[in-house]
Amino acid sequence: MKILNTSPSADGFYMPAEFSQHYGCILIWPHRRDSWQNGAYAARRAFARLIELISSSEKVIVCARYEDYDEARRLLPDRVRVVEMSSDDSWARDVAPTFVTNGSELRGIDWGFNAWGGLYDGLYFPWDKDNKMARKLCDLLEKDCYDCRSFILEGGSIHTDGEGTLLTTEECLLGRGRNPGMSKQGIEQKLCSTLGVSKVIWLRRGIYNDETNGHIDNICTFTSPGEVVLAWTDDKNDPQYKISKECLDILEGSTDAKGRRIRVHKLPLPKPVHITDDECEGLDNMDGEPTRTPGERLAASYVNFYIANKAVIVPQFGDENDSRAVDILSGLFPTREVVGIYARDILIGGGNIHCITQQIPEFEK
Amino acid sequence: MKILNTSPSADGFYMPAEFSQHYGCILIWPHRRDSWQNGAYAARRAFARLIELISSSEKVIVCARYEDYDEARRLLPDRVRVVEMSSDDSWARDVAPTFVTNGSELRGIDWGFNAWGGLYDGLYFPWDKDNKMARKLCDLLEKDCYDCRSFILEGGSIHTDGEGTLLTTEECLLGRGRNPGMSKQGIEQKLCSTLGVSKVIWLRRGIYNDETNGHIDNICTFTSPGEVVLAWTDDKNDPQYKISKECLDILEGSTDAKGRRIRVHKLPLPKPVHITDDECEGLDNMDGEPTRTPGERLAASYVNFYIANKAVIVPQFGDENDSRAVDILSGLFPTREVVGIYARDILIGGGNIHCITQQIPEFEK
Repeated sequence: MKILNTSPSADGFYMPAEFSQHYGCILIWPHRRDSWQNGAYAARRAFARLIELISSSEKVIVCARYEDYDEARRLLPDRVRVVEMSSDDSWARDVAPTFVTNGSELRGIDWGFNAWGGLYDGLYFPWDKDNKMARKLCDLLEKDCYDCRSFILEGGSIHTDGEGTLLTTEECLLGRGRNPGMSKQGIEQKLCSTLGVSKVIWLRRGIYNDETNGHIDNICTFTSPGEVVLAWTDDKNDPQYKISKECLDILEGSTDAKGRRIRVHKLPLPKPVHITDDECEGLDNMDGEPTRTPGERLAASYVNFYIANKAVIVPQFGDENDSRAVDILSGLFPTREVVGIYARDILIGGGNIHCITQQIPEFEK
Repeated sequence: MKILNTSPSADGFYMPAEFSQHYGCILIWPHRRDSWQNGAYAARRAFARLIELISSSEKVIVCARYEDYDEARRLLPDRVRVVEMSSDDSWARDVAPTFVTNGSELRGIDWGFNAWGGLYDGLYFPWDKDNKMARKLCDLLEKDCYDCRSFILEGGSIHTDGEGTLLTTEECLLGRGRNPGMSKQGIEQKLCSTLGVSKVIWLRRGIYNDETNGHIDNICTFTSPGEVVLAWTDDKNDPQYKISKECLDILEGSTDAKGRRIRVHKLPLPKPVHITDDECEGLDNMDGEPTRTPGERLAASYVNFYIANKAVIVPQFGDENDSRAVDILSGLFPTREVVGIYARDILIGGGNIHCITQQIPEFEK
């Protein structure tokens, strides 16, 4: 593995859309006792179900700590590779490399990671194990790696259409916890030079009470070039309404890198999901401050799905909108089977299916 | 990775000779403070030199603990893959899989490992991390794995010619610390059914004072089918003389699986090597018992070389026989460059170049 200090865009590399063909997918076996209730037992079963589904149409690599390796290996299908790798938590989207390609070669980008805000408003300390994973994963895959550690970014805060357009949120990328010394223009230039895009569409905020500072991948994502789904509620009394309406207005007033107007499909939200007393009881207190307060609203959203080669896997919450979300996405992904999996046990950790996955685009071995 | 409980031989698989073409080689970055003097600093530089040489003609995978990963990555060439993997010590020959092939597919064998003798006369406790490596390495390489954990064996205690013949020692395989419930005949059958051999040549003992209970790879190895090198001294007052003479007699009285008489090339030993007071001072005492006693004779031998695709890498001890060993091996390996590297810093750990390497035979990806 070579460590590269050049610019991916200048080298002719760009980030493909998630709906392009994948080589596979990376996940991290959950273990953190203040993220996952009851020692992650329920979360592990949800991860295993998700991995079973993804691995039916692409390769899956699961990173497990030394102490969790045997259990992960036992719970996962033979066709899944389990590799030993230390981590602080289990958000592959945010700590695995962002992969870029020039059409024939694949390379990884190693962003700086500071647990969603570092000492300003990050979610745990320390985060050194997480921050070392991207490079290790490049080495594992025998891919060269761009050193972008001086720029703090999580994979969940960006989406691309693979044709020059990037979606993100100001709430996250301009927050004080990431790159406070950089202007909006400077950050936009960095996104263009690393991800091979020429147009950045900035939404204002993400899902209400999303502890990632409003990651784009929980509120809006591309389903094809020029088309997005947007998390939506018609309830004007819900604080989410104003946020989603603001996104809608921006999107409808935007064109993409190819000059197309963005077509927005509304994806209804489930009714607000609140963590229960019992669920909070199951979260260990690892650093003197509880992760969650009983009754706290969780950032539940159907947008947090994963697009595998032959399936789209969508979180379900036991809500009446569960099947509606599946139906809408089935219409938008006609060549893939849209499968819902019950994901409350993932949501409690603070994210969802998209957050715990990172696709590896197809490459020639 | 599938875990297989069938017999490799019955499945048509056998262990190729080390002098066959390799895909690559596995090593483990040294760290154990009671094996490697002064926190393994000198050993790491010797490992790095060896890895540099091997990686010039085959792929190299280096397993490093989480805490050593960054240093290993920094000291090793880009072309080497460093993967995070926990270990108790650094003897890839004995803890990595033994690979077998049917000519088109490669599989690994996961033997039981008990630190060279378990609670009877093993060299450290616990050894759980080491014992889990073979399976993880198969998973990493996407190769199916034979579960032979109920049989205790180290890779350093066997050599094959790739044509049906296996070399080993009674001192090691019949010792009380490995498989005390098995007869010599039962062990021989196990070797045949797992390694695809039909003839086992049993030498009596290995190198004098070799703490592995006389591993074959320190005293005798194949250089081509029907030909071996044997560690040799002409000094009849050296306790090694009787051991080597006994080996010579057995070898000269043996035929291999193809009915060939074995041709023996004597490889001179260096003059006895003893560990110094200073060197012992540099070994931490991790479990109440020092690893070595000042003045203790180390099991130095030129036979402990590694055969890479284009090089044979031979330990050197600053002895007058160093260049003679290189010359003899140059004659026996006419298509490879024979390179000596100063290996006292590896020897202090209790083995040498062959012990810290494990070849992966060539395979189609």
